[in-house]
Amino acid sequence: YYFLPVHIKMYKRISKHTAFYLIQVPVCYRRGHFLHGPYPATHFGPKACVLPNPTSVMHIQDPASQRLTWSKPPLNVLVIRKIRDETLLEPFKELCRFLVEEKHLMVYVEKKVVDDGSLMRDDSFSAICNQLCTFREGFDDISDRIDLIICLGGDGTLLYASSLFQGSVPPVMAFHLGSLGFLTPFKFESFRTEVDKVFEGNAAIILRSRLKVKVVKGMVQRNEQLLSTQENGILPHNHINNEAGKITLQLQVLNEVVVDRGPSSYLSNVDLYLDGRLITSVQGDGVIVSTPTGSTAYAAAAGASMIHPNVPAIMVTPICPHSLSFRPIVVPAGVELMITLSPDARNTAWVSFDGRKRQEIQHGDSIKITTSCFPVPSICCHDLVYDWFDSLAQCLHWNVRKKQTRLTDASDSSETEN
Amino acid sequence: YYFLPVHIKMYKRISKHTAFYLIQVPVCYRRGHFLHGPYPATHFGPKACVLPNPTSVMHIQDPASQRLTWSKPPLNVLVIRKIRDETLLEPFKELCRFLVEEKHLMVYVEKKVVDDGSLMRDDSFSAICNQLCTFREGFDDISDRIDLIICLGGDGTLLYASSLFQGSVPPVMAFHLGSLGFLTPFKFESFRTEVDKVFEGNAAIILRSRLKVKVVKGMVQRNEQLLSTQENGILPHNHINNEAGKITLQLQVLNEVVVDRGPSSYLSNVDLYLDGRLITSVQGDGVIVSTPTGSTAYAAAAGASMIHPNVPAIMVTPICPHSLSFRPIVVPAGVELMITLSPDARNTAWVSFDGRKRQEIQHGDSIKITTSCFPVPSICCHDLVYDWFDSLAQCLHWNVRKKQTRLTDASDSSETEN
Amino acid sequence: YYFLPVHIKMYKRISKHTAFYLIQVPVCYRRGHFLHGPYPATHFGPKACVLPNPTSVMHIQDPASQRLTWSKPPLNVLVIRKIRDETLLEPFKELCRFLVEEKHLMVYVEKKVVDDGSLMRDDSFSAICNQLCTFREGFDDISDRIDLIICLGGDGTLLYASSLFQGSVPPVMAFHLGSLGFLTPFKFESFRTEVDKVFEGNAAIILRSRLKVKVVKGMVQRNEQLLSTQENGILPHNHINNEAGKITLQLQVLNEVVVDRGPSSYLSNVDLYLDGRLITSVQGDGVIVSTPTGSTAYAAAAGASMIHPNVPAIMVTPICPHSLSFRPIVVPAGVELMITLSPDARNTAWVSFDGRKRQEIQHGDSIKITTSCFPVPSICCHDLVYDWFDSLAQCLHWNVRKKQTRLTDASDSSETEN
Amino acid sequence: YYFLPVHIKMYKRISKHTAFYLIQVPVCYRRGHFLHGPYPATHFGPKACVLPNPTSVMHIQDPASQRLTWSKPPLNVLVIRKIRDETLLEPFKELCRFLVEEKHLMVYVEKKVVDDGSLMRDDSFSAICNQLCTFREGFDDISDRIDLIICLGGDGTLLYASSLFQGSVPPVMAFHLGSLGFLTPFKFESFRTEVDKVFEGNAAIILRSRLKVKVVKGMVQRNEQLLSTQENGILPHNHINNEAGKITLQLQVLNEVVVDRGPSSYLSNVDLYLDGRLITSVQGDGVIVSTPTGSTAYAAAAGASMIHPNVPAIMVTPICPHSLSFRPIVVPAGVELMITLSPDARNTAWVSFDGRKRQEIQHGDSIKITTSCFPVPSICCHDLVYDWFDSLAQCLHWNVRKKQTRLTDASDSSETEN
Repeated sequence: YYFLPVHIKMYKRISKHTAFYLIQVPVCYRRGHFLHGPYPATHFGPKACVLPNPTSVMHIQDPASQRLTWSKPPLNVLVIRKIRDETLLEPFKELCRFLVEEKHLMVYVEKKVVDDGSLMRDDSFSAICNQLCTFREGFDDISDRIDLIICLGGDGTLLYASSLFQGSVPPVMAFHLGSLGFLTPFKFESFRTEVDKVFEGNAAIILRSRLKVKVVKGMVQRNEQLLSTQENGILPHNHINNEAGKITLQLQVLNEVVVDRGPSSYLSNVDLYLDGRLITSVQGDGVIVSTPTGSTAYAAAAGASMIHPNVPAIMVTPICPHSLSFRPIVVPAGVELMITLSPDARNTAWVSFDGRKRQEIQHGDSIKITTSCFPVPSICCHDLVYDWFDSLAQCLHWNVRKKQTRLTDASDSSETEN
Repeated sequence: YYFLPVHIKMYKRISKHTAFYLIQVPVCYRRGHFLHGPYPATHFGPKACVLPNPTSVMHIQDPASQRLTWSKPPLNVLVIRKIRDETLLEPFKELCRFLVEEKHLMVYVEKKVVDDGSLMRDDSFSAICNQLCTFREGFDDISDRIDLIICLGGDGTLLYASSLFQGSVPPVMAFHLGSLGFLTPFKFESFRTEVDKVFEGNAAIILRSRLKVKVVKGMVQRNEQLLSTQENGILPHNHINNEAGKITLQLQVLNEVVVDRGPSSYLSNVDLYLDGRLITSVQGDGVIVSTPTGSTAYAAAAGASMIHPNVPAIMVTPICPHSLSFRPIVVPAGVELMITLSPDARNTAWVSFDGRKRQEIQHGDSIKITTSCFPVPSICCHDLVYDWFDSLAQCLHWNVRKKQTRLTDASDSSETEN
Repeated sequence: YYFLPVHIKMYKRISKHTAFYLIQVPVCYRRGHFLHGPYPATHFGPKACVLPNPTSVMHIQDPASQRLTWSKPPLNVLVIRKIRDETLLEPFKELCRFLVEEKHLMVYVEKKVVDDGSLMRDDSFSAICNQLCTFREGFDDISDRIDLIICLGGDGTLLYASSLFQGSVPPVMAFHLGSLGFLTPFKFESFRTEVDKVFEGNAAIILRSRLKVKVVKGMVQRNEQLLSTQENGILPHNHINNEAGKITLQLQVLNEVVVDRGPSSYLSNVDLYLDGRLITSVQGDGVIVSTPTGSTAYAAAAGASMIHPNVPAIMVTPICPHSLSFRPIVVPAGVELMITLSPDARNTAWVSFDGRKRQEIQHGDSIKITTSCFPVPSICCHDLVYDWFDSLAQCLHWNVRKKQTRLTDASDSSETEN
Repeated sequence: YYFLPVHIKMYKRISKHTAFYLIQVPVCYRRGHFLHGPYPATHFGPKACVLPNPTSVMHIQDPASQRLTWSKPPLNVLVIRKIRDETLLEPFKELCRFLVEEKHLMVYVEKKVVDDGSLMRDDSFSAICNQLCTFREGFDDISDRIDLIICLGGDGTLLYASSLFQGSVPPVMAFHLGSLGFLTPFKFESFRTEVDKVFEGNAAIILRSRLKVKVVKGMVQRNEQLLSTQENGILPHNHINNEAGKITLQLQVLNEVVVDRGPSSYLSNVDLYLDGRLITSVQGDGVIVSTPTGSTAYAAAAGASMIHPNVPAIMVTPICPHSLSFRPIVVPAGVELMITLSPDARNTAWVSFDGRKRQEIQHGDSIKITTSCFPVPSICCHDLVYDWFDSLAQCLHWNVRKKQTRLTDASDSSETEN
């Protein structure tokens, strides 16, 4: 067996189950160096091996080598700017003028952005302004029309962009003004050059995984029969049957879904299931289920380790847990997590999605979380490693310090001691 | 584009760089549910997509579906037991008797294990004892002869087994007596049944990734030219040229490689490079580079989040760092890490490998760490999710607590308050 | 200089500012061993000493030697029980019967406690029930009438008791049923003996410090003049003048006062002043100002170290702070802390007191916190050290673990390695 | 009873046990505002009070009001400088010249400091150099001769100064060059003015508590009788009798005493006793017992909360503990701690004192730790609160961060969401 990347055309069918295909492959196929690590050996000692199972083989392009390309020149550009920030006004106008007049693009902006007072009073901008396409969130769906998103402002603009595109997300190019963000790697100063480079194609991109979150109202029923017949294990194999429930909300989050006590003063008390099995109960302020991208956001504040966005994982972080030993955990990206109120919870809980759409969770409701197949393709400034460590240092002051010996170090003053 | 598992035969070469191939593939290829997550969409909006790069596609069998199988019946079994633990004596004899007399296997044990006094005094065991093959670590290489490893005792036995097999590792079946370990999922009580099941094949296995660690003595030279021509970035792009160095040690570790201050009272001061680039300096007691398996060992003690062993990642955890903001980080399994003494370090550092082979690191030396392609195939008791959460709870008391309202909760005594 | 405990009588005045006094002191005054530590030397080398300042000398009885005594036999006993917990019904009746019939005491209970359905239906208890004095929280003030408080249930009962007595608090004897609490050291099983012992006097007590919290509405004005004339220091010496404000609430808390984001999804952003000086800003979910007693409650969940209740200190713990380096701090009990919304906060904050009386904090409001002079005198079961460590282990599972070598420890299997 | 600060002279003895004394006290004695908090009420409800116990009353001058004064003008000044730091050479010479020529003081320096090559080659300094008194650590005892210590360099100089004075410590004035340290608050630039101010008297000082550490070799014997008769408590009341042991070392530490695994790869395993009672066992890299001053040093690196140096407390911090729930604890300054190897420890442990005098601890040895009565009187630059928070920010970057909304905050881009 060898597994190769190919262009495929069927050549001849030889049975119900197999066929010959014609494929075009590079001749000099080189077993490369992949971001997910090398191929693990599949033979163990003289006689053991992994049972080959072609249906469970996954073919993934190495994240480190992913480059953005265009099938046709991009035409429709969505510009998102942080509102209520006057310092962004001039950059915004400059950007729009460039996109409209120099690049001859169709520029989309949210209606409230152009309705802004200072913008409307600027006569010199009105010509540009009239050429902008406006839309209202929740009324006008532009999600199938946008070729490129340009963000101006903080990381919040990217979260907002993510929320507008619940399916496929166009490439996002995000500029910061002043201070680097995790999600906004580009400096605005050189925006013309940078935008031109992206239009040319071949930009490095990072596919930031999102979580698909479903809120299912009602109908969680503990399957008592299963419970009663199970062995008396340490971890109860509670299985939950909530097929009958109604999905009331389905959302993609880029950072995290948070379940917390909301306005209540009392502890939240929720159960966490992994692939249908009760893993643990969370007693505390709440729990954060985050992407690697989100590991540097709220999860970091709650004490999580920070995960590079290319690690295929989901992070579960308790918020102020009652238990001293409740550390954050990192599970494979392919699992399904489910959160419900604990049967003995006396209060409800609240769920929010990237900090938005906060709503109450009652007994019987459940929140199901899986990795989405619609990541956010975020254009890198340098590359996916450099950008991340740079933002760790600048956004979170990660390990930034004075170079100094620790206070314990009395050695400097004495040579007589070892 | 589609990426498929195939049998391949060249069909026609069309240029120096491409050719047509004939491949046999299953017709009803089903896009599955993978532990690493779903396939991410590769088209973004109407016009953008990931530039296909066949040479960088990786084909990996889903970890969740990996099953152990045997090409021939296993014959040579290595039994490892924790020494200096008298309670293991009877189980060890019972196991050997079963393997030799009932299963008719060739059983290998370390010489010092049979040289044990109480074992030699037991006449009833001498017949069995005489049939055991003995070897001495460091003298006799049995690494290409063993079909199956059976461990008896604590997690240390598995680390020891890992150290014996620096290349391909035979499948490991690990029994605990008394208390469950992270690496020893099987109860000894039912060892006959469990061993029989494994021999039948189709056991669930988890490939625990190891790190390949090279110690290169001397010859680290900072490439001054590169440094002087680089842009004045926040993160210095220090490139290091140590090709001229001599590899003095190469080892596979299952848990972690630790660089620390050793017997010195003074802080260690080491630089951490990722893919040749200086990422940060570590000032403190040291730094732990661990596998996900190791994230529940020393790294957990040093404050790391706990990572499921199937997440393809490497964890970097500082030990008592001088900087308050130095959180552990998780990077993709495919990167190359390198650790050197910082140029301004006044003391040497010490490196150890799964807690063994401690040695000093001088200025000019470097430690290079990558994910190994020789994982430890560890046979699961239940499955890879259940086993892990079970050991989290039992080994680390993860989130084990009294069900109780937090002290703040004055609500119970009063209904008049909200 | 020596500072001694004395009986004093004025002897002769020698000036407007000084006088001679006659005092009676024990001859064999022994420099003792105090919980706050030994007397520090006040002479430093041959020529330096602390400038004596009699007005600033504090005379405190060693907390470790404090015993409870009665000036008259206690008569009025307040019994507080956790409501909505049926398992407490029988113990409650048993306790009341004992206090009323055997000890001939006046027993106070909250009205809602006796209005409980199951209690009223129990005819055998109605005779006792008729002799109970009832009161309603918020309507009937019994705070100057109670000689002893007996709590039955969880730690919440003691927080509730604390809230009923905003001035001097009668001694509290707290029983747990089932599981030990931090504040409920006594087992109910032996309640007769224990109550008798307390009535005899000489019980060990721990004075649990409380915080006096004032909410001042409006009128925080930054003293701009001071700001503009200050040197350009790292720590701004912001002084705040809010004398004109109106105190709208003054409360004693036993665990903590919490300022958080309340029902909002957005970060709270508050400034923390110590003795009138801006110390830091807190950006995150909020901040906890707690007593040492509270350090094992919500503060522990937020990551604080745990402080023995006899350390005279106040703990400040951020809740999920945005900054990685924002560690909890412990300041002397005698400082005044003040919390306000940061001038650039876009959202309000919410304050709560031992988890109760949640209310909103607007721009211009301030929360002032000092150590109260009305502690809660909590009767010890064993002594103040034993009780604390016992509850750490039982309530928080502090350092409770399997005795086991860490996973790194491969030593057990090999003698050839160091 | 009233407790007052007094000048005392005996007036008349009236019995074997009591006498009248004549004392001079300030007339207008005002109950002040103390750093340790207000006097707690000692009456609880109508009938209970603390049993007065004059022999256990402590009289302490409020730390916040402590000022340094001189009984005679200081004459002998010890100058400590960080060696091996060329940047300190000129400041050192400048300081010596000032002290010798302008202040006409006797200046003591360590012999190795003047033996420094660059210093000896400087002819212009030789006149001053000849007037310096030199001493050698370990040979010449100058501890009863020094009136003032001036430190130049990092915090290590102060630790070194502390180690030279095992009894009473002269006042210490510590200068930093370049970057502020926790223990070196003064800027060197204005050293003339600052030294003059200190000589005038009335400087604010902070008495930094030290720990007295005794290493007792041999003779720890578990008192088996006590053990066997004790009740079956959760916390074993192990009492230890090591009166027969020999004290081999007694040292004062300013930061911390550390017990760790030393050069061994294996976990240390030590037992911690408080006032003779076994509190817990520490399994991990070791344990730190620190003063509040030390809480910002190694203990902070190990995860401790930071304690203001005026809180009378001792901090116990595990180093990389095996148990997830082993949080640091803070106990009253007056307790006696003892550390021994655990009976089942397979390895020895190592102890060090402010990072120095590392030595091995065997089975049977014990380390006893109490708060010393010889603090280090450290002269404040501003005051004890400001200096501390300033150094927290500058040395540890405590809560230093970009003012920025957290990544979750998608609110900026949307007004339509709550």
